[in-house]
Amino acid sequence: MKKLLAEFIGTFWLVLGGCGSAVLAAGIPNIGIGLVGVALAFGLTVLTGAYALGHISGGHFNPAVSIGLFVGGRFSAKDLPGYIIAQVLGGIAGAAILYGIVSGMDGFAGYSQAGDFATNFYGVEQYGHTFSMTSALLIEVVMTFMFLIVILGATHKNASPGFGGLAIGLALTLIHLISIPVTNTSVNPARSTSQALFVGGEAMGQLWLFWVAPIVGAILAGLVYKFMAPNTD
Amino acid sequence: MKKLLAEFIGTFWLVLGGCGSAVLAAGIPNIGIGLVGVALAFGLTVLTGAYALGHISGGHFNPAVSIGLFVGGRFSAKDLPGYIIAQVLGGIAGAAILYGIVSGMDGFAGYSQAGDFATNFYGVEQYGHTFSMTSALLIEVVMTFMFLIVILGATHKNASPGFGGLAIGLALTLIHLISIPVTNTSVNPARSTSQALFVGGEAMGQLWLFWVAPIVGAILAGLVYKFMAPNTD
Amino acid sequence: MKKLLAEFIGTFWLVLGGCGSAVLAAGIPNIGIGLVGVALAFGLTVLTGAYALGHISGGHFNPAVSIGLFVGGRFSAKDLPGYIIAQVLGGIAGAAILYGIVSGMDGFAGYSQAGDFATNFYGVEQYGHTFSMTSALLIEVVMTFMFLIVILGATHKNASPGFGGLAIGLALTLIHLISIPVTNTSVNPARSTSQALFVGGEAMGQLWLFWVAPIVGAILAGLVYKFMAPNTD
Amino acid sequence: MKKLLAEFIGTFWLVLGGCGSAVLAAGIPNIGIGLVGVALAFGLTVLTGAYALGHISGGHFNPAVSIGLFVGGRFSAKDLPGYIIAQVLGGIAGAAILYGIVSGMDGFAGYSQAGDFATNFYGVEQYGHTFSMTSALLIEVVMTFMFLIVILGATHKNASPGFGGLAIGLALTLIHLISIPVTNTSVNPARSTSQALFVGGEAMGQLWLFWVAPIVGAILAGLVYKFMAPNTD
Repeated sequence: MKKLLAEFIGTFWLVLGGCGSAVLAAGIPNIGIGLVGVALAFGLTVLTGAYALGHISGGHFNPAVSIGLFVGGRFSAKDLPGYIIAQVLGGIAGAAILYGIVSGMDGFAGYSQAGDFATNFYGVEQYGHTFSMTSALLIEVVMTFMFLIVILGATHKNASPGFGGLAIGLALTLIHLISIPVTNTSVNPARSTSQALFVGGEAMGQLWLFWVAPIVGAILAGLVYKFMAPNTD
Repeated sequence: MKKLLAEFIGTFWLVLGGCGSAVLAAGIPNIGIGLVGVALAFGLTVLTGAYALGHISGGHFNPAVSIGLFVGGRFSAKDLPGYIIAQVLGGIAGAAILYGIVSGMDGFAGYSQAGDFATNFYGVEQYGHTFSMTSALLIEVVMTFMFLIVILGATHKNASPGFGGLAIGLALTLIHLISIPVTNTSVNPARSTSQALFVGGEAMGQLWLFWVAPIVGAILAGLVYKFMAPNTD
Repeated sequence: MKKLLAEFIGTFWLVLGGCGSAVLAAGIPNIGIGLVGVALAFGLTVLTGAYALGHISGGHFNPAVSIGLFVGGRFSAKDLPGYIIAQVLGGIAGAAILYGIVSGMDGFAGYSQAGDFATNFYGVEQYGHTFSMTSALLIEVVMTFMFLIVILGATHKNASPGFGGLAIGLALTLIHLISIPVTNTSVNPARSTSQALFVGGEAMGQLWLFWVAPIVGAILAGLVYKFMAPNTD
Repeated sequence: MKKLLAEFIGTFWLVLGGCGSAVLAAGIPNIGIGLVGVALAFGLTVLTGAYALGHISGGHFNPAVSIGLFVGGRFSAKDLPGYIIAQVLGGIAGAAILYGIVSGMDGFAGYSQAGDFATNFYGVEQYGHTFSMTSALLIEVVMTFMFLIVILGATHKNASPGFGGLAIGLALTLIHLISIPVTNTSVNPARSTSQALFVGGEAMGQLWLFWVAPIVGAILAGLVYKFMAPNTD
């Protein structure tokens, strides 16, 4: 139960902090935090959550991470369902709190389009360009693949002790620095689900890609890392 | 006495550095540091203060932190009043130095409105929008709650030794990346008090919220963390 | 083979992440990540790669780094050819994936000029100014020299254990903060080669400088560091 | 001799990297690194230099730091002159390389005013405002005071081992986030001297303040820290 509560709070923080910075602070004229600030915020939710909660639950905060760790031989199948449910519920709680805060803003009128409320999207014009569904699939698979390579490598017995949370959090920052313009960056089905639920319509219709692509990328990383890892693992 | 001096200097640095970056450097056209720079500055005051002074006083620099640590069983009640007084006085000293620097700027005419001099605010239009008092209460409670979860977790015996200062400082950066647009971010009654004293009027009238909400959030975190923490605590 | 795969993946990540952030996210109006975001992205590819893969291959991801470590007495000549080949192939794979993602963008019409697709350049107007070939040579030699000084120093036996990946990754961020306007920053022949191959023409014609200058800088650093290093090395 | 070479290279890097980022990359329209990028660059020169060279020379790279460490009882008087000379010469070498790179830029016509070439200044309009000489003195004294408090505290025996370079480097970033608009931030007489030499005139005439104020701040910090430090020091 302590583990599930830690996963719930960590994913709550990831969604509230990452999506919250995007919704509240990114677009303010002249002094807004922009996509650099949003990328930093997402990474810092994981960095801070990893050091605060990692010693309780392992600090996954993401169904694709739990699945990739399972494929890589670092997490047991029997814990998967509970972790994934806690992560999705934590994400929804974070989105709900954020929605509550934003609904107190003057002129707030709700959300309806993919990309609103920091939802993930594909094939929709955002940030001045439209990327194809294939581009979206490709970037989500590859980014999640590399996220899991960093997670599996930086938490390996041979890696520098203690630096895992730093490397993993900043990997998520890096991933956002690259891929926000294409999909708003998921690599995390719980984060995608929580936002889509509050927007509905098109955002819900596109949600499938943000479960499929991250999980495929995570499984591939688990398989590749097992081949590459030192035998002492 | 050494502990109180360390808390005084640390809170002095938090206010001078965090609010100073906001007042002096955030709004410069084209190359100003913006809200990303202010968020980074606040976090770095705590990160640097924690590594420099944490081994003397624990590095709280914030009455809500001291209270949350007390509720979480990590700080004794008898030290609370001294710490809180040192923190408030340190914050005021930081604000006074900053006021002295700014008053040497051409055209300086003093401050009078909530939001000026990096004061916290609610229900006031800043950054292009007005958020309700409820939004302000909610975000300050939740942000302080998560700040204390990170502090309690990252300094737990089971956490990676040495990384607490990094995680806690960057948690404050993250909190600012999310919540500056709503309240200018307090999560710290000493920081709110120091700035309000130099602005007066409306800023003083709104100060109550920035004592109540952070302390409520900190108490909740202390209670939740005690339930979630490993038994070895 | 495990080492070569780790070098392949690390250089893949360096190119995909660093050049990807530049191509996809730097120039978005108002909220784009700009050169600060690109500098951060390049550094974080190395920081995350070092913690994830450094314990397998040493985490070079750059032919100039492998050569500098060889001159500094930290890497054997017999491993040089394999490492360099794996790095160049990894870089090309990263560029190919990035090209695939970008080609799914509306209105994409390919690349043809030095500077496009994050290629390195000299004597070409970019970012509002033209720098001479001499300026380009000088900055690439000096930046690679200092990159290797940091690598050799921060991984020395006497240095703080574990912090090498942090210092080396952030050194690459720093190098980009200084030198992107002059050459788009190479200090890495593999990264330069991968991008030039997808642009051709002028970009290929200028590629020689981004092999010569980084390698010269790296050799000089190896020689200077051997003189300066503590005898316990 | 090894120590002096390390101080020379470290101060070379501080000036080339910090001032270089300001001169080359800060003001590019739309995507320039701005003052956040310059602040990050200055801090990263010290962070990377500390991990790379700190185990050789202690990693001062700044006459005020050497003096503050002497007053704080951590550095011997007999080493002061050599260190200060090496630091000033290293700074000049960094400025010379930077001047060489910039002189290869189209339309380069030399420098003549305080503030040009990243020189420090007081009482001159920069960044849209003029601050008084008193504001400049005050901010340079206080910023150097806090820089030394962080240095003395984070390298104390009781502090977390290894984190000193991180805290000290990021303290310099923080100091720049606050004080660039007032003086271009010195806190380092070697950095001020190197730049003023290449601008001459007014910049040389104002140089005295950037020796006096940092040294006063450093001496005060040495005295205060001795009083505050644990007895185990």
